[in-house]
Amino acid sequence: MSDYPGLIETLAIESDTKIVFFILDGVGGLQIGDGTETELQTAKIPNLDRLARRSSCGLLVPVAPGVTTGSGPGHFALFGYDPVENNVGRGVLESAGIGFELTPKDVAVRGNFATVDAEGNIVDRRAGRISTEENERVCKRLREKIKIENVEVFIETVKEHRLLVVFRGKGLRGDIADTDPQFTGVPPLAARGLSPEAEGTAKIVNDFVRQVGTILADEKQANMVTLRGFAKHKPYASMKERFNLRSLCLANYPMYRGVSFLVGMDLYPVVKSVDEQLDGLEREYDNYDFFFVHAKTPDKTGEDGNFDAKVAAIEELDQVIPRILALKPDVLVVTGDHSTPSALQSHSWHTVPVLLASEHSRLDLAEGFDEVECLKGAIGQIPAKHLMALALAHAGKLKKFGA
Amino acid sequence: MSDYPGLIETLAIESDTKIVFFILDGVGGLQIGDGTETELQTAKIPNLDRLARRSSCGLLVPVAPGVTTGSGPGHFALFGYDPVENNVGRGVLESAGIGFELTPKDVAVRGNFATVDAEGNIVDRRAGRISTEENERVCKRLREKIKIENVEVFIETVKEHRLLVVFRGKGLRGDIADTDPQFTGVPPLAARGLSPEAEGTAKIVNDFVRQVGTILADEKQANMVTLRGFAKHKPYASMKERFNLRSLCLANYPMYRGVSFLVGMDLYPVVKSVDEQLDGLEREYDNYDFFFVHAKTPDKTGEDGNFDAKVAAIEELDQVIPRILALKPDVLVVTGDHSTPSALQSHSWHTVPVLLASEHSRLDLAEGFDEVECLKGAIGQIPAKHLMALALAHAGKLKKFGA
Repeated sequence: MSDYPGLIETLAIESDTKIVFFILDGVGGLQIGDGTETELQTAKIPNLDRLARRSSCGLLVPVAPGVTTGSGPGHFALFGYDPVENNVGRGVLESAGIGFELTPKDVAVRGNFATVDAEGNIVDRRAGRISTEENERVCKRLREKIKIENVEVFIETVKEHRLLVVFRGKGLRGDIADTDPQFTGVPPLAARGLSPEAEGTAKIVNDFVRQVGTILADEKQANMVTLRGFAKHKPYASMKERFNLRSLCLANYPMYRGVSFLVGMDLYPVVKSVDEQLDGLEREYDNYDFFFVHAKTPDKTGEDGNFDAKVAAIEELDQVIPRILALKPDVLVVTGDHSTPSALQSHSWHTVPVLLASEHSRLDLAEGFDEVECLKGAIGQIPAKHLMALALAHAGKLKKFGA
Repeated sequence: MSDYPGLIETLAIESDTKIVFFILDGVGGLQIGDGTETELQTAKIPNLDRLARRSSCGLLVPVAPGVTTGSGPGHFALFGYDPVENNVGRGVLESAGIGFELTPKDVAVRGNFATVDAEGNIVDRRAGRISTEENERVCKRLREKIKIENVEVFIETVKEHRLLVVFRGKGLRGDIADTDPQFTGVPPLAARGLSPEAEGTAKIVNDFVRQVGTILADEKQANMVTLRGFAKHKPYASMKERFNLRSLCLANYPMYRGVSFLVGMDLYPVVKSVDEQLDGLEREYDNYDFFFVHAKTPDKTGEDGNFDAKVAAIEELDQVIPRILALKPDVLVVTGDHSTPSALQSHSWHTVPVLLASEHSRLDLAEGFDEVECLKGAIGQIPAKHLMALALAHAGKLKKFGA
């Protein structure tokens, strides 16, 4: 598939049509031996199957053949942003996810509270998964005491044992190696610059970690932090600027809200269920052109290695399809950001089924929505980053190229 | 399909899994009219068909749509090297194939002994296909007499009428046009620089050819050389450096050994049959991560235009599949470097069937291993250079990209 960076932007026009992306995180799966079926093949999904028969179907390659993507690049690609060029550290995603607006002077990093023993060795990488309230209490203690010359430090609770640390100052660098050793029984790693220019920033980070150890010495659980995914602020062209889309994110997890925030989507409040997300979709339907509705359960159950739970999660999501269709979106896309086969208990490199339902969809041979039926689809197998252009086209939002 | 040069290298991790590439050279074919079948469709290949049903299948585009590839680029692509960027002159492949280690000062070129008449016109472009022993005798004569100021000349027997010439000296260039006119009844062409900077090297080559004519004037058959595929030495990042793979080449022809040598594979000795190659595979199985087993017969019979012989060659190779499977490789790939339809009696641009068998292969609708069944496969149609990433992924040798 040829890439023409910047081409779609020159073709994007305004129109009052509506596009809904219903993203079933990790929906793609795997058979687990001869004569078996994937989670999607097993699930009873009459609504999605019916929709597939009047859609163009296909399979998305999240990043490139063989590449297992994280959720960040996976979602950038779905939104039409090159997933490699726009790859960012976890720190930036986390800040975006909690709505912390980074400035060009900022380096952000994702932190975990951890428990270390008297020798400084990690005994629990998640500090016993302390509550969010505990996290807030400890963050407050740190905020009151941490002091680094010429650098402003922001310490923000994310959720449970997770926090966000932002260093703001002149000349700070993001190319710093993680301090999380990923094992217990060893101390956190010293921060280390990945370039000579980053050594100064690494020193500041090490000073920070040293102060944390002192300040939290009397804590039973959260007496240390590990840091990973250092990342410098980087500005993004918004979906409005690129595609003329007023966009709304209806996602409940910080990661997905983070990517959405970075590409300029408005964020609907965090709610507790897909039904409440659809309440939001209905409520805000007149105010936006593009809606990103994110469902986490297929990924979660896949990562748990629970085939049956993943099947059940998919069946449950199938039930909300009629509610989306009742809004009569001009384009409805159902797909995932990557596959999470329960057989692998993790994200995988496998392609992801996609359906694009619109009045202008070319119909094909796919008779249902799964990894095998979609092989017969009109979309074929394409890089995920090209999906947005297809959605825009089907919604009448792209003018002709050339005379 | 998107290209991200260098991305796979950042994701490659070590693991003790095994990958076997069984390359059936020129395996893809062509129907020869309505209602007919390709060589692969005609062949009785129960083992490959059974394997296809529990594999991901697809078709490889060797270089780009419409491009007929030579064996060199065809194999570079299979090994995960961009076939256009890494295209090298025949000279470099030949030197690698006979284990001649080039230095940065070297320009290598493939030579043919030829017969010229009293007027200097070529009457036999292959000098009556002299024996390898005759070739060695004539090379020795040349070696003793050739003398060029400030340039060291190496003259090496390859096989029958084929030789390798290496010029070693300061500032030599590889951009020199072939001297082989490709016809009889005319004299060899004068060497000619393809850039002004290459004129000096062209003069040296012409001096060499003149001396050859004088020294071999009394030979009945090999009294001249033609030269083609001038190429400057270029270093390659090895498969170990790029993918963390300790790799072994089990191929018997210089060309394939040459490409393997250039990408840093160890070379198993030349043997006389596929069975002996598999002896080597079994013997060395614990010592490497990646094995390239090359079978030449489908290409040879295809180039002969012998449909039935190609069918028989493929059927014979099908018989060794159980022996490879008995080793339980984590990934077994069966494909070719290009198609060689017997109807065309040459390499062609057509795509090449591929199967990838592994515990983590997504199963698809392909019910056998041929050009048509593989259209229903989960791999789809992808550039051959992406195959290595898929193999690495299925073997658990790639970590996740991004957060």
